[in-house]
Amino acid sequence: MKTKSLQGVFPYLVSPVDAHGNILGTVLGDLVEHLIKAGVHGLTPLGSTGEFAYLNWSQRCRVVDIVVEANAGRVPVVAATTTAEATHQARHFVKRGVNGILAILEAYFPISHTGVVDYFSNIAHAVPEYPVVLYTNPQFQRSDLSLESIRQLAQIGNILYLKDASSNTGRLLSIMNLVGDRLKVFSASAHIPVCVMLLGGVGWMAGPACVVPEQSVRLYRLAEQKRWDEAMALQRELWSINRVFAKYNLAACIKAALEIQGFPVGDPLPPQLSLAEAERQEIAEVLLRLAAL
Amino acid sequence: MKTKSLQGVFPYLVSPVDAHGNILGTVLGDLVEHLIKAGVHGLTPLGSTGEFAYLNWSQRCRVVDIVVEANAGRVPVVAATTTAEATHQARHFVKRGVNGILAILEAYFPISHTGVVDYFSNIAHAVPEYPVVLYTNPQFQRSDLSLESIRQLAQIGNILYLKDASSNTGRLLSIMNLVGDRLKVFSASAHIPVCVMLLGGVGWMAGPACVVPEQSVRLYRLAEQKRWDEAMALQRELWSINRVFAKYNLAACIKAALEIQGFPVGDPLPPQLSLAEAERQEIAEVLLRLAAL
Amino acid sequence: MKTKSLQGVFPYLVSPVDAHGNILGTVLGDLVEHLIKAGVHGLTPLGSTGEFAYLNWSQRCRVVDIVVEANAGRVPVVAATTTAEATHQARHFVKRGVNGILAILEAYFPISHTGVVDYFSNIAHAVPEYPVVLYTNPQFQRSDLSLESIRQLAQIGNILYLKDASSNTGRLLSIMNLVGDRLKVFSASAHIPVCVMLLGGVGWMAGPACVVPEQSVRLYRLAEQKRWDEAMALQRELWSINRVFAKYNLAACIKAALEIQGFPVGDPLPPQLSLAEAERQEIAEVLLRLAAL
Amino acid sequence: MKTKSLQGVFPYLVSPVDAHGNILGTVLGDLVEHLIKAGVHGLTPLGSTGEFAYLNWSQRCRVVDIVVEANAGRVPVVAATTTAEATHQARHFVKRGVNGILAILEAYFPISHTGVVDYFSNIAHAVPEYPVVLYTNPQFQRSDLSLESIRQLAQIGNILYLKDASSNTGRLLSIMNLVGDRLKVFSASAHIPVCVMLLGGVGWMAGPACVVPEQSVRLYRLAEQKRWDEAMALQRELWSINRVFAKYNLAACIKAALEIQGFPVGDPLPPQLSLAEAERQEIAEVLLRLAAL
Repeated sequence: MKTKSLQGVFPYLVSPVDAHGNILGTVLGDLVEHLIKAGVHGLTPLGSTGEFAYLNWSQRCRVVDIVVEANAGRVPVVAATTTAEATHQARHFVKRGVNGILAILEAYFPISHTGVVDYFSNIAHAVPEYPVVLYTNPQFQRSDLSLESIRQLAQIGNILYLKDASSNTGRLLSIMNLVGDRLKVFSASAHIPVCVMLLGGVGWMAGPACVVPEQSVRLYRLAEQKRWDEAMALQRELWSINRVFAKYNLAACIKAALEIQGFPVGDPLPPQLSLAEAERQEIAEVLLRLAAL
Repeated sequence: MKTKSLQGVFPYLVSPVDAHGNILGTVLGDLVEHLIKAGVHGLTPLGSTGEFAYLNWSQRCRVVDIVVEANAGRVPVVAATTTAEATHQARHFVKRGVNGILAILEAYFPISHTGVVDYFSNIAHAVPEYPVVLYTNPQFQRSDLSLESIRQLAQIGNILYLKDASSNTGRLLSIMNLVGDRLKVFSASAHIPVCVMLLGGVGWMAGPACVVPEQSVRLYRLAEQKRWDEAMALQRELWSINRVFAKYNLAACIKAALEIQGFPVGDPLPPQLSLAEAERQEIAEVLLRLAAL
Repeated sequence: MKTKSLQGVFPYLVSPVDAHGNILGTVLGDLVEHLIKAGVHGLTPLGSTGEFAYLNWSQRCRVVDIVVEANAGRVPVVAATTTAEATHQARHFVKRGVNGILAILEAYFPISHTGVVDYFSNIAHAVPEYPVVLYTNPQFQRSDLSLESIRQLAQIGNILYLKDASSNTGRLLSIMNLVGDRLKVFSASAHIPVCVMLLGGVGWMAGPACVVPEQSVRLYRLAEQKRWDEAMALQRELWSINRVFAKYNLAACIKAALEIQGFPVGDPLPPQLSLAEAERQEIAEVLLRLAAL
Repeated sequence: MKTKSLQGVFPYLVSPVDAHGNILGTVLGDLVEHLIKAGVHGLTPLGSTGEFAYLNWSQRCRVVDIVVEANAGRVPVVAATTTAEATHQARHFVKRGVNGILAILEAYFPISHTGVVDYFSNIAHAVPEYPVVLYTNPQFQRSDLSLESIRQLAQIGNILYLKDASSNTGRLLSIMNLVGDRLKVFSASAHIPVCVMLLGGVGWMAGPACVVPEQSVRLYRLAEQKRWDEAMALQRELWSINRVFAKYNLAACIKAALEIQGFPVGDPLPPQLSLAEAERQEIAEVLLRLAAL
């Protein structure tokens, strides 16, 4: 395996795009620099916060290139692939220098159990030297991956992680009991990171970590040191940001928050709209309370 | 308030009924005795595990009478009310000796925000001397109670607790951040009790506690003492019972488990069916592993 | 079979209740008289528009008695049963003089295929001389009855009808193709009656027929005579009432409309609320346009 | 407007792709020829049956080119656009020779009312000389387009049609009552075409028309001539194909059926799998019964 084990805080990166569809390379590079300085343990471009579904192929390649270059090998970069030609994308992204693949299944129509298992297996086999993270998200897949699918996929050599965005924490514990150490679990922003850590998770891949990276790293360290009550106290504070983001479109919120913090990442991609002024104000207040402004 | 504060492990009691519709008083009384000896902190008859929806009014009154009598004032009894004439039921149950009310909203049709707030307020006002537990369950209500409804209801003097069966733990943290100490939170079996305790919950009201009462009490004490890693280790073991129960109908499972343990509680009520032999065997194995046989 | 075949327009009756929980017998009797004079082909008390879920047992018996007495054998009365002790209720209602049973399954928890089939079979076997209408409503059952369940149930001698409230008209055609003439289909207000008639349905059981009974009977006759274009023209007009009712709680709307028409049926039962003045005004305008005022 | 009015049967074309990702031009051309000879009134490439979500941009352009060329101006070609850069795609496709745009909104995340209206308006404004069909599909959009969104969009000059895949026929009638003649309605395969025609629809855009084109055209003519009972008799027969297709993945079924009919269109795109042999046999039997083999 060319990449050592993944753990810790992986911010989901936004994709800054100008009105002509060009990726704003300097802004994205600055954001990467800022996050690494804040101590994050990895970077995840092209996830849901990265508005993957609304970018074309050349925009996605450009995002990967900028992140890989700005990172300069300091932390692992785990890029998300979409479903059309997923194996081709995975191969292509590792050639461009990413260190792992976050495999998304967008299922518009019912997919059989075998279809699901084949889909993820094929991605894993396309990049056998790299760790693959299963991304389970009922919003994309129209249903959770079955425990049986996950159990089978956990037996493939380089499927090593699962990122679950189901909001059902009990399901995470069932998965952990089922697959043991074969599959390590990352929390999504639909979960409470500290709870996932207490259950045995290894970190989180989430949009909010883009705007509160230092606080996120502090939270991770408290959890790592099993200082659960202190961790929970910090978590309760930080949850206010998840709470406000859950009220609106996530990418729009993260982009608004980054703009407020001085990163001119621009507007979300259509059909997503920018936040209204009152909503931006609400976010600014939360950032202020969390000392993130 | 006639009842001191509620906290700890409250098993959801099954309703043992024979083929003629008679409540099996001796069995239910024995179960109450067994649970109290195991150290549980309260008893909850007529909840979902109690198959409330399939019992008639006189059966429900009989269940309450048996539980109140067998308990003999040792632990608080919190009885669930159904929606038809809920205020009448609440008044009636406290006259029969229960110590609190778990208020269920069964909404077959869309109910306005005001309708929801009025419904729970009226129950609380009907029994002003007794604590009321809001029961939020998307299965009955067809949608979660809004945070705004919960915020308003938390301002009523004797609405002191919330039992949430939504499976979304993040929602619990949002509620806690919103209402602070005005509303204490009980976990349902859709959540992981130890996570809810870490968040600041005060206990759980759940069917599985009927069949693993001692283990549940041990788990509660570890959480109370903030020995989170030991608590989590025990929780992971105990979760196997939630896992197997989640695969089948909950009431059928708890009744099967109690039968295996020697409590002849009989079959679940129609339209629910008894478990098949292989399913009972699966439960027996879990009980054995948990030293609950 | 003691009841000849059911077909045509069956208004879903409201349940008029005063503030003390008493059924308003005179109002309900007047409504029955009014509907029969308007030409309806049957009456359905205790359905969803009848707020069955929020009435106690003695209130339900009282509603049945009043309707049976006011009807005086003129049209078939098909009473809805709820799930707690459904067979007992069915037996009891036919003794009180109803001519058929509308069997509702309220499933709070997952029910197996066998549990579903047993449930409806048992009701049918409890009243072998009377026709039973299967009521499929995803709002109560948490999932549609499977086609296989319907196919099996259609083989029971006195399960002769199905009332479907799923809003999926294609499903109706699949059911009709599957069971042929063994099961005749009634539309619910979730469907467009004239479409269901074109597919081969035999009528509809629906709340709106309470407030536009003459227009509904006229629509039925046009469909019966296969004057489809005229039927469709009338249907389009009448649909405005379904449209406005779909915006609010159905029972609240029907009660408001009847009040406007001069039947003092009172408020909906809690937790359902009365309509606001603007909403009543909206309904009054629709009634006026349909010459139902 | 460069395209005269759209009406009648528009088969949803499959996208035949070989194992290397090449579009099978000859097969697709043959299918177009076959369908036009069978009398279809238009062609719709790149819809859901066309597996749009799993094709890359150059594959999509190739499909459009082949269909436009094979059609040679005989019937209108309405190509579907996806959400990433939808306006760019629309402009591009009309330059390549299509006669209208079917606009799909894939919403992974909540989109505001304004975001939805802007999205479709922008597509319409990008191709002002061409008719735009709104595609409402709860599977892609995660919720139906609101009636208010549809009402606003119907006021834009070249948004002239709506294709609804919601399966709720009553919703179609509400839309028609709301927008009158400003927006003409096409049925999807989730609806019963003859019902939509009786309501006032102008045709259907659907996958099954690919495999029963002559029968579909006959059905359309009967409906056009208002011979509703004959139309319904034919519709009941044809519904067996919808029924069997609804059991499995739609694209896999249409591709299997076309293969059986002698069009070597190949396998569905991953993650969709080919049908099993028994499933193909089931489809073959239905085709035989419908004289489509």
